[in-house]
Amino acid sequence: MTSTIDVIRGATVESRHRVSAAAVDAAGRLAAWTGDPELVTYWRSCAKPFQAVPLITDGAAHALGVSDAEVALACASHNGEARHVEVAEGLLAKAGCTEADLACGAHSSLQPSVARAMAERGEKPRRIHSNCSGKHAAMLAQARHRGWPTEGYRLAEHPVQRRALAEVAAWTDVAADRIGQGVDGCGVVSFALPLRNMALAYARLGMGAPPGPEAPARAKAADRILAAITADPFLIAGTDRLCTAVVAATGGRVIAKIGADGVYCAVLRDAGLGLALKVEDGDGDSARPALLAALEQLAPGVVRVAEPFHRPVIRNTLGETVGRFEARLALERGR
Amino acid sequence: MTSTIDVIRGATVESRHRVSAAAVDAAGRLAAWTGDPELVTYWRSCAKPFQAVPLITDGAAHALGVSDAEVALACASHNGEARHVEVAEGLLAKAGCTEADLACGAHSSLQPSVARAMAERGEKPRRIHSNCSGKHAAMLAQARHRGWPTEGYRLAEHPVQRRALAEVAAWTDVAADRIGQGVDGCGVVSFALPLRNMALAYARLGMGAPPGPEAPARAKAADRILAAITADPFLIAGTDRLCTAVVAATGGRVIAKIGADGVYCAVLRDAGLGLALKVEDGDGDSARPALLAALEQLAPGVVRVAEPFHRPVIRNTLGETVGRFEARLALERGR
Repeated sequence: MTSTIDVIRGATVESRHRVSAAAVDAAGRLAAWTGDPELVTYWRSCAKPFQAVPLITDGAAHALGVSDAEVALACASHNGEARHVEVAEGLLAKAGCTEADLACGAHSSLQPSVARAMAERGEKPRRIHSNCSGKHAAMLAQARHRGWPTEGYRLAEHPVQRRALAEVAAWTDVAADRIGQGVDGCGVVSFALPLRNMALAYARLGMGAPPGPEAPARAKAADRILAAITADPFLIAGTDRLCTAVVAATGGRVIAKIGADGVYCAVLRDAGLGLALKVEDGDGDSARPALLAALEQLAPGVVRVAEPFHRPVIRNTLGETVGRFEARLALERGR
Repeated sequence: MTSTIDVIRGATVESRHRVSAAAVDAAGRLAAWTGDPELVTYWRSCAKPFQAVPLITDGAAHALGVSDAEVALACASHNGEARHVEVAEGLLAKAGCTEADLACGAHSSLQPSVARAMAERGEKPRRIHSNCSGKHAAMLAQARHRGWPTEGYRLAEHPVQRRALAEVAAWTDVAADRIGQGVDGCGVVSFALPLRNMALAYARLGMGAPPGPEAPARAKAADRILAAITADPFLIAGTDRLCTAVVAATGGRVIAKIGADGVYCAVLRDAGLGLALKVEDGDGDSARPALLAALEQLAPGVVRVAEPFHRPVIRNTLGETVGRFEARLALERGR
C-alpha cells in the first residue's frame, strides 16, 4: 500500500505526498516499513546527533567544559530564539571562537512566527541565528581541541568532516565510501544513505547499543546526548516546533529529529526502535503528520501533541482555512 | 513510465516530484500524456482566461471601455509590479470601484526578487499587489455591469462565481455539478476537474473552437484574450517569470499559464493542442521544468527560454549551488 500525506481543499484531494519509512531495532531487524525502506536520500539535519558524538568521545566536551545545554544545541535545528543564540555564543566562546568563525549562512527562522517577530523588531538574521549554529560551534570546538585549523572546517576534506563521516559510517553500517556526499543548506557535508540504515543508527543511539570497538565511549556519549535533549527540549528546536513537543510530551521516551526536505528520524526507547522517514518529494510540512502517524502505529497513544501538528491546515491570503493535510500512512510489518 | 522532476544534490537524487499531464486537441482527442491524464485536481489560476471570458461575452468590457491590457491582467498571476498595479487600478476605476472593494488578501510578490525589492523600499504588499488583483477587478466590473451587488462577489453563491462555473463547465465539457469547488488562495472559487478536460479547454481557447451555442461570441472573446496576452506578455506574469518568457519567446504561438500548487496549462497554437499538467505533490518549482519538458516533446525547438527555467538550481544559505532540478519526463502517445 502506498502511504501518502494528502492535501485536501474543499472535498477534493489536491496534492499528494508519498512517504517511505523504515523502523528498525538495534540489531538491524526491519520491524516495520512503508514505501521503500531502502530508499537512499540525504540524512540532512537528522545526522546532527552523530556529528555531535565525536565532540564527546574525542574529548573536546570534557576539555572545554561543554555543558549539557551546549550538547543539546549541537544536535539542534533550532529557531534562532534568544536562548538558542545565548547557548551557541557560550559554546563558541569555549572554543575560543566568535560568530565570525561560523561558516553557516544566515537565514530567517524555521518558525514563521519567530521570523515575523524578528522582522518586526527590525532584527536581521545573522549566522548565529542559523538553525545549525550549535552544530557549527561544536565543529569549531572539535577542531580547536584536536589542534586542527578552524578555517575550512565545513569542507569535505577537512578533518572535522572526515571524522563526522567515519562516525556516520559506524552507526549506520554503511561503508564511508558508499555514503553519498553533498553540500547541506548550512554549507557542511550532508550524507546520502538508505532509510533503513538511518533508522538503525537511531535505534542504536536510543538503546545504548552503539557499534564498534569504541562502543563503551559511544554509549556514554549517546546517553549524554539523549539526556541533554530530554532535560531541555526547547533547545533541540524551540517554540511551536514538533521535535520539542515530542520530547516534552514523552519525557524523552521518544526523541524526534527533523531534517530538511522531508526527512524525519526518531528514537522510540520503549519500543526499542529507530525510525527514519522521507517524504519523497521533500515536503517538510508533510513530514510532521507523517512522523506522528508512524509513531502512533509503532507506539499507540504514547505521543500526545497538539492537533495542528497532526492535521495542519491550509490558509488562504485572507486567513481562511481552505484545506488540510491528512495522513494516510500504513506501516507494513513482519518481512 | 513514471515522469518525474528530480532534485539532485551532489550526485544523488534527494527528492522526486511525479508529474501527470494531458495534451488534447480541440476535438478532445488525447494526443499525448504521462502519469494519469484523468487526474482530478484544482485548476487554480489556470482557470483565469475562462473566468475572464464573461467579462467580454456578457458586455462589460465593451460597456466600460475595458482595454486590452486590462483583459490581459484579468488572466494574469502577476508579480504586483508597478505596471500591474497601474493596470489593475485602471480597471477598478472603470468598474466604479477602489482597492477597498477587492476581496483578495495581500501577499508578497510571487517573484522573490520583486518581493525583496519591495521590502527594501519599506513597501508593504496591499490587495492591489495580489497576483490575482486583475481577475478580482474584472469580477467587480462584471458585477457592476450586470447590476449585481459587488459585495460578496468572491463567494460561491454570488452570480459572478456561478457565471464563472458555467463558463468553466462549457469549455471543459464537465457538467457544473461534477466540478469540485474549493476556496482559492485569493478567496474566490477554485474548480476541481480532470487534467484532460483542462487541456481540452486550452485547446479550444487556442484553436478558435469554443463550445456551445455561444461559440461565435466565445471565439471572439478568446481571440481578444490571446491577442491581449501576446501584445504585452509582461502583464500575464512579469519580471523573470516563465509565463511571460514563453509568450514573448514564441510571439504568442505558445501561451502558458501557471496555477498554484504545481498546475500549469498551455496553448500550442501551431500543434493545435492544449496542455495541462500537475506536479502531483503540488511543487511549483517543479512545474516550470515539467512544462518546458512537455512543450519540447510536443513542439520541438519552439520554446527557447533561459536555461534556469529548464534546470533551476538549489542554493544553500551561503549562496552556493548545491543541487539542481532535472526533468525526466516522457510523454506517451497514440492511445
